[in-house]
Amino acid sequence: MCGIVGYIGGEQAAPILLDGLSKLEYRGYDSAGLAVFDGKNINIAKTRGRLKNLSDLTNEGTNLNGTLGIGHTRWATHGIPSDTNAHPHFNADESIVVVHNGIIENYVKIKKQLQSKGYEFKSETDTEVVALLLDYYYNGNPLETIEKVLTKLEGSYALGMIFKDYSDEFYAVRKDSPLIVGESQNGKFIASDVPAILKYSRDVYFIENEEIVKLTRDHITFYNMDLEEIKKETTSINWDISAAEKGGYTHFMLKEIHEQPKAVKDTISPRIKDGRLTIEELGMSDEDIKSLKKIYIVACGSAYHVGISAKYVIEGLSRIPVEVDLASEFRYRNPILEEGTLVVIISQSGETADSLAALREAKKQGVKVLGIVNVVGSSIARESDNVMYTWAGPEIAVATTKAYSTQLVALYMLAMYFADVKGKIAKEELQGLIEDLIKLPEQIQSLLDDVEQIQYFASQYVAAKDIFFIGRGIDYATALEGSLKLKEISYIHSEAYPAGELKHGTISLIEEGTLVTALLTQEELYKKTMSNIVEVQTRGAFIMLITNDDNQEANKVGEFVILIPKTNKYFTTSLAVIPLQLLSYYVSVGKGCDVDKPRNLAKSVTVE
Amino acid sequence: MCGIVGYIGGEQAAPILLDGLSKLEYRGYDSAGLAVFDGKNINIAKTRGRLKNLSDLTNEGTNLNGTLGIGHTRWATHGIPSDTNAHPHFNADESIVVVHNGIIENYVKIKKQLQSKGYEFKSETDTEVVALLLDYYYNGNPLETIEKVLTKLEGSYALGMIFKDYSDEFYAVRKDSPLIVGESQNGKFIASDVPAILKYSRDVYFIENEEIVKLTRDHITFYNMDLEEIKKETTSINWDISAAEKGGYTHFMLKEIHEQPKAVKDTISPRIKDGRLTIEELGMSDEDIKSLKKIYIVACGSAYHVGISAKYVIEGLSRIPVEVDLASEFRYRNPILEEGTLVVIISQSGETADSLAALREAKKQGVKVLGIVNVVGSSIARESDNVMYTWAGPEIAVATTKAYSTQLVALYMLAMYFADVKGKIAKEELQGLIEDLIKLPEQIQSLLDDVEQIQYFASQYVAAKDIFFIGRGIDYATALEGSLKLKEISYIHSEAYPAGELKHGTISLIEEGTLVTALLTQEELYKKTMSNIVEVQTRGAFIMLITNDDNQEANKVGEFVILIPKTNKYFTTSLAVIPLQLLSYYVSVGKGCDVDKPRNLAKSVTVE
Repeated sequence: MCGIVGYIGGEQAAPILLDGLSKLEYRGYDSAGLAVFDGKNINIAKTRGRLKNLSDLTNEGTNLNGTLGIGHTRWATHGIPSDTNAHPHFNADESIVVVHNGIIENYVKIKKQLQSKGYEFKSETDTEVVALLLDYYYNGNPLETIEKVLTKLEGSYALGMIFKDYSDEFYAVRKDSPLIVGESQNGKFIASDVPAILKYSRDVYFIENEEIVKLTRDHITFYNMDLEEIKKETTSINWDISAAEKGGYTHFMLKEIHEQPKAVKDTISPRIKDGRLTIEELGMSDEDIKSLKKIYIVACGSAYHVGISAKYVIEGLSRIPVEVDLASEFRYRNPILEEGTLVVIISQSGETADSLAALREAKKQGVKVLGIVNVVGSSIARESDNVMYTWAGPEIAVATTKAYSTQLVALYMLAMYFADVKGKIAKEELQGLIEDLIKLPEQIQSLLDDVEQIQYFASQYVAAKDIFFIGRGIDYATALEGSLKLKEISYIHSEAYPAGELKHGTISLIEEGTLVTALLTQEELYKKTMSNIVEVQTRGAFIMLITNDDNQEANKVGEFVILIPKTNKYFTTSLAVIPLQLLSYYVSVGKGCDVDKPRNLAKSVTVE
Repeated sequence: MCGIVGYIGGEQAAPILLDGLSKLEYRGYDSAGLAVFDGKNINIAKTRGRLKNLSDLTNEGTNLNGTLGIGHTRWATHGIPSDTNAHPHFNADESIVVVHNGIIENYVKIKKQLQSKGYEFKSETDTEVVALLLDYYYNGNPLETIEKVLTKLEGSYALGMIFKDYSDEFYAVRKDSPLIVGESQNGKFIASDVPAILKYSRDVYFIENEEIVKLTRDHITFYNMDLEEIKKETTSINWDISAAEKGGYTHFMLKEIHEQPKAVKDTISPRIKDGRLTIEELGMSDEDIKSLKKIYIVACGSAYHVGISAKYVIEGLSRIPVEVDLASEFRYRNPILEEGTLVVIISQSGETADSLAALREAKKQGVKVLGIVNVVGSSIARESDNVMYTWAGPEIAVATTKAYSTQLVALYMLAMYFADVKGKIAKEELQGLIEDLIKLPEQIQSLLDDVEQIQYFASQYVAAKDIFFIGRGIDYATALEGSLKLKEISYIHSEAYPAGELKHGTISLIEEGTLVTALLTQEELYKKTMSNIVEVQTRGAFIMLITNDDNQEANKVGEFVILIPKTNKYFTTSLAVIPLQLLSYYVSVGKGCDVDKPRNLAKSVTVE
């Protein structure tokens, strides 16, 4: 997604903006640009490609003189990645300049209206309509003009704006795209996310929808849409910025894969006290839990796969019916949310646009929402009725690993807690589950200690065109995640399939030598899945098998076998996914792909 | 799946068996064989490949002398397709011979036991254990021996067996695989399905689980597992055998695509009386319907995609919550089926093994089951509490088209009926829906009348490696079916994705020139999906767009556009799927694939 940084203060703006943008690289981008006001003119530098290009173009920012500026990293939505489509965007006489994160949905209509009034467009972006609308409605008063323009826009946006008539101030606003404001002795800042300004400030304002901000060298003023001043509180951020560095690893992804034992442990530990499970932040009484009729888990991408896995665990342990839905589908489904329904929203960033919209849809219907979120103070965290944080720390690689693993254990604990309160589980069984849960970090570590064979195996599949992942039940949930991981970072067309469904079509794609990764961790399904494995093998597939270390039949069908330590049947995804993450990583490295920033993808999807 | 035919009577058996097997070709197979008893010896002929090979090998059956025999077409499950693995299978002294449809799940264990007693195996099949077990337990009494062997077998099977000691009789039995028995003046028959014997008999016995049949030249006797004689009734079959021929079309699939207007009309018409919707066979009172709390739709393959589409329609119209599950997952999920749940099982053949098992799981839990089935008298039809038949007629091509289309309209009618009874829909709205429904056949016809442009377009994509289908809401359900169709018969790795979920990974697979077929039939989602289309287009995708004929924006994003006639938003799948069926068909023809019998696939999946 796009990233925005803005600065006004006593120092040269350009170097500060470049530094801030570099901290937002994790969001994904294809071009970048700066606009800096030297007191007389607003000067723009922008270019397609990496920030390095922009830095070279501006001689590390020193070519752009001035202490007020806005910067932008662009992830193309409307209009291809190009120098012209890069932000910032000007009006014709270069007196108003804009950066934008989000999508203006009605831009075609606005563009036509403006064209009919003689406006000319230089770019293919939706953003340019904002710059020209500001021009059209400009009456000398920036606040009034901004308010007027906002009433014309549909979609999602965070905007940063400079007006040439006002050399000591700039403006920002947001709707459904994230934006924060910070201040230090050196000046005032806006940004799409905290890391961009963490070097200067740990106390930040989270801007809410349809709030307008005016920043001068000395003051920050917040307005509502009636242009009345409003008061806002700061939130203190206690992240360690060094945690966002790669350490000794080649890629953030590998570092984060290896951080999983700690991340999982950090997520479990605060909820196990004296050997007993407590989830204080849940905000639900025992009565609330006993009257639960249904749980609706809503998420995107890997977090959705956590939901698929959790359905088995929650239904199995607590017998509460669970429906899992993609946020982008849920929000437009007109979902049936009856009394006694709990909606669980899972999101690493807490800013996933569709998940946030799903949350709002649920709240609109009067249903309680629990957020499972990694980023403290994010939109989903703030708008949920209650939040259960995962403690994975900042995740930089686009392909999630540690956030996914912490989301899994958060859901396991939720399932166990509900089962306990509802009396669906014997004390000894619960105790056994808690013990298995506590063992997970060291079991994950044991799988990470033995990577050579996967590394070697992966090197043989860098040229693969099609790879399949199969499993039944909870193993299918794991297969989905394994497949997505490979797809994301190695660009190999992989697909996960419920093993029993293969015969209804997909088996026609199996050819001599096709790699099929089979998951086999559910003892009661061994025989059934084995039959399906033999079917694809009979048609020439090469079988990579991930199964429990006590499966005596493993070497009979698996041509490359990875054994996982024995755990509870509900927790196997947490272990079986580790070799799949490693497989994807080493295939991607072997192909020479940009592991941490795969093409076309962004870390946090803050547009629809 | 495998096919079985058996005969005893006054005529030469082999030609009758070959003819019968040819009528079971639609089930899919990779090898075939015959065993014929000449009074002294049982002689076997079997071979890999098409029935033509077997016919050549036996000089159209004339080389095999005798009036008692069993025949088999094999679809490999355990052991590769080969002459040796083809059925029938003998014991060592060739005194007992067996054909088998299904899977013996505990064959590895039995094989070891028999090997420890000195038995040698010639094939890799699970079936051979049956022949050798019969040998091991043989006490001179076939019935007692069969009963003894059945107690040792786990899995699913239909078996045909001849014993050399008895030249005037043969035996059959089944568990969870279909088997029928028929008789005519010329003799007695067994078969896996009706078409095999329709030439000789229209009155058939459906064998139930664990019933044993003894057939002599004059008598058919049925036994239960206590070897007590039981009485059975015949069912009269009124299918027209000519309906199973290709008519003027090159392939069954194309013929069946073109039969859709009639099939859909035949399915709708009996349920619209005097302009009013009635579903007499539903067997539910208004009170039953009003107390419905949940509908669980369970199916496999394309029938599952019907379920995904139906969820939108049923929830949208009647506001009854719907959960859709794959049968192979549902049956092992330990599903939560609360009071007030209706389970709907959708299956063309009515013999889909997983769907049948799901049905039994639901009934075991005491929940009412409605079958949506095409084959009268099939297992699912017989075991459901009530059946709503689709009237598509026999479907021969492996890739379903007309059965799928009739299932869709059956579910539309169910949704409308429930909504009406529950008072969730105004009379005028219902009337409008009925009118739109009645229009569907001619609208489908209009799409079939104009195939040249699709034919030409398809010719450009015969070499494609990866194709994607995207849509939101009900358009996603259509995308799933379009993708499966292409995959099944053209072996191109295609994948359907909810348009809003693309950005969470799969978009990384989009390259310059990748074909993305976008479905855009839901007006309220136009803008949202258009954004996603522009995203993949920006990354180089070529867009085939299927949208409503009143969409003014169509030509702005679609590079190849198919317009569908305007219908109710709930019914668009019925129209949008037609060009997708045609696309798959012409790509498959263009690639020179075996359209009607794609590799690795079977029409009716009667094993897990």
